[in-house]
Amino acid sequence: MEKTNYLPSKKKNFSKWYTEVILKSGLADYAPVKGCMVIKPLGYSLWENIQKVFNSLIEKEGVENAYFPLFIPYSFLKKEKDHIKGFSPQLAVVTVGGGKKLTDPLIIRPTSETIICQMFSQWISSWRHLPLKINQWCNVVRWELRTYLFLRTTEFLWQEGHTAHATEKEAIAMSLQALNWYQTLYNNYLSMAGFAGKKSETEKFAGAKTTWSLEFLMPDGKALQGATSHNLGQNFSKVFNIVFQDPSGRQAYVWQTSWGLTTRSLGALVMTHGDDCGLVLPPKISPYKVALIPIFGKNNSQILALCAKIKKEIEAASSEYPGKVIIFDSQEKSFGWRISEAELKGIPLIIPVGEKELKTNLINPQYRIKDCGLATIKLDNQLVLKLEQNLKNFQDFLFSRSQAFLNQNTHSVQSYQEFKQIMEQKRGFIKAFWCEDPSCELKIKTETKATTRVLPFKSETKTQGKCIYCQKPAANQWLFAQSY
Amino acid sequence: MEKTNYLPSKKKNFSKWYTEVILKSGLADYAPVKGCMVIKPLGYSLWENIQKVFNSLIEKEGVENAYFPLFIPYSFLKKEKDHIKGFSPQLAVVTVGGGKKLTDPLIIRPTSETIICQMFSQWISSWRHLPLKINQWCNVVRWELRTYLFLRTTEFLWQEGHTAHATEKEAIAMSLQALNWYQTLYNNYLSMAGFAGKKSETEKFAGAKTTWSLEFLMPDGKALQGATSHNLGQNFSKVFNIVFQDPSGRQAYVWQTSWGLTTRSLGALVMTHGDDCGLVLPPKISPYKVALIPIFGKNNSQILALCAKIKKEIEAASSEYPGKVIIFDSQEKSFGWRISEAELKGIPLIIPVGEKELKTNLINPQYRIKDCGLATIKLDNQLVLKLEQNLKNFQDFLFSRSQAFLNQNTHSVQSYQEFKQIMEQKRGFIKAFWCEDPSCELKIKTETKATTRVLPFKSETKTQGKCIYCQKPAANQWLFAQSY
Repeated sequence: MEKTNYLPSKKKNFSKWYTEVILKSGLADYAPVKGCMVIKPLGYSLWENIQKVFNSLIEKEGVENAYFPLFIPYSFLKKEKDHIKGFSPQLAVVTVGGGKKLTDPLIIRPTSETIICQMFSQWISSWRHLPLKINQWCNVVRWELRTYLFLRTTEFLWQEGHTAHATEKEAIAMSLQALNWYQTLYNNYLSMAGFAGKKSETEKFAGAKTTWSLEFLMPDGKALQGATSHNLGQNFSKVFNIVFQDPSGRQAYVWQTSWGLTTRSLGALVMTHGDDCGLVLPPKISPYKVALIPIFGKNNSQILALCAKIKKEIEAASSEYPGKVIIFDSQEKSFGWRISEAELKGIPLIIPVGEKELKTNLINPQYRIKDCGLATIKLDNQLVLKLEQNLKNFQDFLFSRSQAFLNQNTHSVQSYQEFKQIMEQKRGFIKAFWCEDPSCELKIKTETKATTRVLPFKSETKTQGKCIYCQKPAANQWLFAQSY
Repeated sequence: MEKTNYLPSKKKNFSKWYTEVILKSGLADYAPVKGCMVIKPLGYSLWENIQKVFNSLIEKEGVENAYFPLFIPYSFLKKEKDHIKGFSPQLAVVTVGGGKKLTDPLIIRPTSETIICQMFSQWISSWRHLPLKINQWCNVVRWELRTYLFLRTTEFLWQEGHTAHATEKEAIAMSLQALNWYQTLYNNYLSMAGFAGKKSETEKFAGAKTTWSLEFLMPDGKALQGATSHNLGQNFSKVFNIVFQDPSGRQAYVWQTSWGLTTRSLGALVMTHGDDCGLVLPPKISPYKVALIPIFGKNNSQILALCAKIKKEIEAASSEYPGKVIIFDSQEKSFGWRISEAELKGIPLIIPVGEKELKTNLINPQYRIKDCGLATIKLDNQLVLKLEQNLKNFQDFLFSRSQAFLNQNTHSVQSYQEFKQIMEQKRGFIKAFWCEDPSCELKIKTETKATTRVLPFKSETKTQGKCIYCQKPAANQWLFAQSY
């Protein structure tokens, strides 16, 4: 079969495969600006679908979208000492505006806690204003020299939620709620299984009291942080003076959270499901759910009419899957080329339509991943229902495969020797007791490149263990991995 | 009746009224950064509704959303000489990144023609790649020192469409199509009537061959440009070398368009419809379509239950109006306060629900603008249908009112004396012959502050006239106005 695109082998040259599949499928492109990328229509439509899912989740809980300025005065960033320390090396600074040198240079937001806190301090004065739950979809800038498409770019897109509460208990519940939304998005829509848990003190967000995150395992055995949620405590409310009067008249600082998900998630999606033929997109997030490929022959106009009829019927029906139906109808391209093109773009269901289909009134959908076979479907009023079932199966198949990969590559180790061997040979997640002393964490990182990823929520609660590095008593088993 | 908010009189102090209605209704707020603003949830939800409408219009014609970098190398901006000349005074420049001084400073996009053209030159090589139709929703920066909420801010949000075509005819058709989308949005959704037409050479976009725009008249008699669409000709394709091979093998430069709509449109919306009680939002764009105001008395739980029932019923039905139903149920606040609050937020239909409604099973909706009366509606299965009709009436009423205001304030003048008098006394649009010599245009501007707004499409085609300024022969009647 004639191929549209020859991709490097995902297994043999993972990093090259990743870049090529993004460029060739039309997800994104390099920009002529250091560290930056262009998100092309296919990539952007995935991001729009993620936005729709996430907006519907947060709206139900009263989180409202808003928009805050791109520019942050440097003086704001300096107020929270850990925050400025963490972001300082990555800042982009505007020093000239309207032809004049600025007396107060402006930072391009690397994250918006500080400017949002400044507004919160003006908006909040009473318990009646709480909880205040705001979300923003925007671009942020964290300086990078080398672009790794979606995963490491100077500018990226994200959502950042920012909330203020009367009590820490509420703030913690909010942080965990946000983490739960991210899990819903990843598990149910992106078909990705991962771990959720708490970050170590070293790995938490600059300015947070506690950070929780989702961690996914990429096919090369490296972990990728999928989203984070922070309990900011009163760290920001104290320096920005965000004070409310409670019903009894007492003044108190608010408790805050922030939580974010970036276009990195698209990189994780590509890595997780893609194969040597291209992207593999879960039906719930793919901009196209079905590709119709006409097999041209004698009755081309009838074949195209049948394709149009099928497309219309599928798109008219209500569906759990937002994608459209696309007909690859270029007569200049061979049947094989068009099949390859549909595969490259990761379309979940591919349906050839030719003389046979015309005659028999039966179609034979193929899943994007061929080894999960499919039954013949009659072109009757059950068509949509059956395709819907096919899409559900494929969505579930991708998640199960991801879960199985995660299970197979999460190792429990008994000795540091074993830890090192795994990190040298196959990587993956390692579950191990750690004494929670940052010096052991640093030594492990230096010696194995593995960092603590999270203390998973569902860690087995053995009463006690010994730190994998120093052998001192350790209360918890942490997840370690090399990471993106 | 107790009032939540005392607004300045729209008639007596228009500018102060405008700012106050935005701040008090919660559309937006000033940001602690010079020239910038915060778009609060109510304002942002209007922007999201505009995005939905516009996305659905462009998608049907094959325009796809994408995302290009915030940063543009200065060298790109310089390539098109008129372009850099036009934008130079307004640029924000990043000179420091990642702690280091940049050898090549980066401009924050004031508009994205140049970076998109750079990508187009890489993506386009054959007639098969044309037309290429891309749109982007993003933030842009044009330096301003003084903020005028929504109307003049250093950073604003917008969409910018960019297309490339094989022929100029196609490019012109595309530009006019875009203008037509903007008209649909303004007329049918924002209920605003205005003029469409061509800009003069002086007023056209920096780098365009032709600019078309929509011009609306604000209550103070000043014009506001609602959206623009440009035929870029080959100005950019020649300097960015965007070349395609036509079917016969010849190389040619592409023909391009760009077109944009900004968050300014929200400012125009507020100015056009609002009154001394607050915002007035057209039903097709309002985040809330109906406000239920319980009249608390003896049977409060039954009253609230009835409100909940009505809300559920309205929201369950399919509707042309995307807004939700909101119940103003705070028992701490008086009935009058809650009515005022619903008015301030511009909710099209306000329905009091109390003992009488419980007993009679009849409700009395009120339009946001009281002088258009409403019939009693029975709470039966016709409820939704009748409310839908009410909303349609209100949408149409707002448009008719806007159209009438435009007609009343568009003046045809015979002498420059009369022109000057109108601009001094009542302003508005003036339709007058102009010889199309920029020197007359400049003199009129200097003497009356009025600029040419557009040569309207539907200008009366008198064979010939005389320039209102210099009396030389003039082929066309142009629209003049002072403008925002």
